[in-house]
Amino acid sequence: MAAEQDPEGRAAARPLLTDLYQATMALGYWRAGRARDAAEFELFFRRCPFGGAFTLAAGLRDCVRFLRAFRLRDADVQFLASVLPPDTDPAFFEHLRALDCSEVTVRALPEGSLAFPGVPLLQVSGPLLVVQLLETPLLCLVSYASLVATNAARLRLIAGPEKRLLEMGLRRAQGPDGGLTASTYSYLGGFDSSSNVLAGQLRGVPVAGTLAHSFVTSFSGSEVPPDPMLVPAAGEGPGVDLAAKAQVWLEHVCAHLGLGVQEPHPGERAAFVAYALAFPRAFQGLLDSYSVWRSGLPNFLAVALALGELGYRAVGVRLDSGDLLQQAQEIRKVFRAASAQFQVPWLESVPIAVSNNIDEEALARLAQELVAVGGQPRMKLTEDPEKQTLPGSKAAFRLLGSDGSLLMDVLQLAEEPAPQAGQELRVWPPGAQEPCTVRPAQVEPLLRLCLQQGQLCEPLPSLAESRALAQLSLSQLSPEHRRLRSPAQYQVVLSERLQALVNSLRAGPSP
Amino acid sequence: MAAEQDPEGRAAARPLLTDLYQATMALGYWRAGRARDAAEFELFFRRCPFGGAFTLAAGLRDCVRFLRAFRLRDADVQFLASVLPPDTDPAFFEHLRALDCSEVTVRALPEGSLAFPGVPLLQVSGPLLVVQLLETPLLCLVSYASLVATNAARLRLIAGPEKRLLEMGLRRAQGPDGGLTASTYSYLGGFDSSSNVLAGQLRGVPVAGTLAHSFVTSFSGSEVPPDPMLVPAAGEGPGVDLAAKAQVWLEHVCAHLGLGVQEPHPGERAAFVAYALAFPRAFQGLLDSYSVWRSGLPNFLAVALALGELGYRAVGVRLDSGDLLQQAQEIRKVFRAASAQFQVPWLESVPIAVSNNIDEEALARLAQELVAVGGQPRMKLTEDPEKQTLPGSKAAFRLLGSDGSLLMDVLQLAEEPAPQAGQELRVWPPGAQEPCTVRPAQVEPLLRLCLQQGQLCEPLPSLAESRALAQLSLSQLSPEHRRLRSPAQYQVVLSERLQALVNSLRAGPSP
Repeated sequence: MAAEQDPEGRAAARPLLTDLYQATMALGYWRAGRARDAAEFELFFRRCPFGGAFTLAAGLRDCVRFLRAFRLRDADVQFLASVLPPDTDPAFFEHLRALDCSEVTVRALPEGSLAFPGVPLLQVSGPLLVVQLLETPLLCLVSYASLVATNAARLRLIAGPEKRLLEMGLRRAQGPDGGLTASTYSYLGGFDSSSNVLAGQLRGVPVAGTLAHSFVTSFSGSEVPPDPMLVPAAGEGPGVDLAAKAQVWLEHVCAHLGLGVQEPHPGERAAFVAYALAFPRAFQGLLDSYSVWRSGLPNFLAVALALGELGYRAVGVRLDSGDLLQQAQEIRKVFRAASAQFQVPWLESVPIAVSNNIDEEALARLAQELVAVGGQPRMKLTEDPEKQTLPGSKAAFRLLGSDGSLLMDVLQLAEEPAPQAGQELRVWPPGAQEPCTVRPAQVEPLLRLCLQQGQLCEPLPSLAESRALAQLSLSQLSPEHRRLRSPAQYQVVLSERLQALVNSLRAGPSP
Repeated sequence: MAAEQDPEGRAAARPLLTDLYQATMALGYWRAGRARDAAEFELFFRRCPFGGAFTLAAGLRDCVRFLRAFRLRDADVQFLASVLPPDTDPAFFEHLRALDCSEVTVRALPEGSLAFPGVPLLQVSGPLLVVQLLETPLLCLVSYASLVATNAARLRLIAGPEKRLLEMGLRRAQGPDGGLTASTYSYLGGFDSSSNVLAGQLRGVPVAGTLAHSFVTSFSGSEVPPDPMLVPAAGEGPGVDLAAKAQVWLEHVCAHLGLGVQEPHPGERAAFVAYALAFPRAFQGLLDSYSVWRSGLPNFLAVALALGELGYRAVGVRLDSGDLLQQAQEIRKVFRAASAQFQVPWLESVPIAVSNNIDEEALARLAQELVAVGGQPRMKLTEDPEKQTLPGSKAAFRLLGSDGSLLMDVLQLAEEPAPQAGQELRVWPPGAQEPCTVRPAQVEPLLRLCLQQGQLCEPLPSLAESRALAQLSLSQLSPEHRRLRSPAQYQVVLSERLQALVNSLRAGPSP
């Protein structure tokens, strides 16, 4: 697996990836003499997506990359000048040319940690004008990444820790980098790998894939490979004609299954042999190009048993249509019987992978039976990040019980002292008429200083480290909050002082 | 508006933006001696999205850009070598290094033309190995672009030709280029403009935008602008203190509306003044930061009337929450009454824009009343591009009636003569037991030669030209096919020879 690397500046969103009104407002602020006013905005969401009670925070690495590279080039400023009023003061454009994030400070939930409604994922502070320009790109980078990571985490929870989950949604993604983002953050959220090669190259996501129906159907069976010989796995002994050996095995297999030896499609078998010649240690059969039972399965068994004679073990089969669960169960029975019949123990446990529109419901049925599943994560943009409505600059803490489980998150004013472990704390649940009392066994500050005056405060974790944090975080969540359907809502409460400030603002008309 | 320009190679999807199985299959073909076999694949879809009966073909420009630049760099080949078996023949990687699209030929539906189920959007032919590697990126580039363009076309049909439609979905897009793609193809499908500045800079999409709630709420009313003076629109006469003039107008407006002069929020008014100072010719009031009726509307009227005195006309108001239609209708009444009261005729027809989750249903309600609407296009990935299942290389023609309306599309074998205008033709509708007869007044070939042996055959149309073609194409569609709900299905029929070939393949088992 390649190390994660900066993809030559490409993954950094460009400064003009922003809504025009951010630029018009920038001019408005500048004209009002407020360009350098101190400002802060918080990025949070109001509801968790997919009807769940948790969200994974993700996208921070892309935000940091974007902020550190943020600089309007001449061409950018010229373009803005072309869409702003022609009599705009040239000094405004000089101001834009000099902008960077050297005065911007960012606090953030670490990538892969749990985020709950109302708790900021990002706090961005700095001069008003530059902070305004950053809002749209940061929203764009965080919203989708968190959504995809959360979706992946839910599928991982359904599948359990052992099943292999492969993301393969590229062909339906929102354009090239839509796919890159989805693959990256599906991995962060708990998938094992992606079909997207670019995500492997640029982000270090493990990649996986074998063959498609088009490969199988492109063979007629009359092809003559230039070199049909395969050397045994041990590397010793003469090469063997794999196609010929598979043909011998086919007769045994068909006799065992009660099929005529002419029934399995010769083109499919030729495709399997071609693939096995190229990948003798990673042969997977795609079973449903023709008939699973009369063609795909016997052809797979013939080639897999031929490979097995040479010391190679097939890595599995894949189903891409029909009733996946029922077929998988029947295929397992066939493998067991063939394993006994041919005295080949490993055949019994050959992995069965399934794909094709696997959503949470389908996965829940499949997870009991199968070793590997792949498919396009279903995504629905239901979260709604909006700007701060609670007043003032805030701090956020997570309270844990003595068993390490999460109790609640507390929002308070930035200047308040942090809650102390073992000490009683009075807090206000949302909408409550009275405060309640909690005594946390542990207290974790949630927002970490990430960029200070444009400087990175600590190295970013690798994608794999963030992925591990995501799984750790989920394990700390109690089952009633982790439940995917009708979960209990995790509480985000306000400190007494923050609640008092909210009440005072509500009481009187603010002007 | 900037001319469309090639965005420095960035918009070109990279060669490794592909599923890994395309690379493993490439190795399989190579090992089987089939790398240079002649191959063709067609990209089409089975159902139109959103329950409609039409799709707009889009994404071709990105495909062409991708194909012309397609070349595996050393780093790409090295990455593939790192994920393929270590004993893979080095000659395979030499083969990859030499690959380009110089032997690839592409036929395509022109960008912006109507596409129907089963009719290829793209036909790609060339050596098997390279064509296989191209499949995923081309699917990725065409599927989403066509989906977004179709969505935009539907909203345009609802809104009618005159209303202004602004796309502003960037913050919820699938990462940076997801947003760029969505903005580009929303414009192609019929939107007027986008909030996405980068789409303006890189693709020449007209950009639009004014101000957000955060701008309004960031002002308290105590700010002192460095230069509060505004010179009259005619450019003659001394500057006028706009804030002071708005304050005078506020008293008249409040008296007229029966409001206390203290009720409208002074910070909102200061924000409007600041924005008007920066954009005197493009002042738009965002009305719902506080109360539309007691604050937003009177503040807007005060600033707009002050501007009007200086010879500037406000360009409109925007509503972003609540019952948009009802509020818009009441605001129009207020504008009419104030126009009469203050003897300011232009005030009567100030445009009212609305935003906030405008979907087809909401737009249908709004379209009767309003001049401009903006919002995030709702997108749902429901199309399902799959590989060719009809045999052989095909040609496609569109048959038109004497009034220029579309009758049906015909698929036939590539070697058949084209249908002739005025001549009777026997064709097979899908699933029909007998052929039917049609006599087209006009016949249009659908697939245009786009790339021949890697060379562009004709210059690509500009985005605006494709946008115009989309609107022209839609106007040729009969109302029953254009209808957005429960439309009549447009017929795609087979020629007699193609139908006969299909029947013969169905009759006998293919091996």
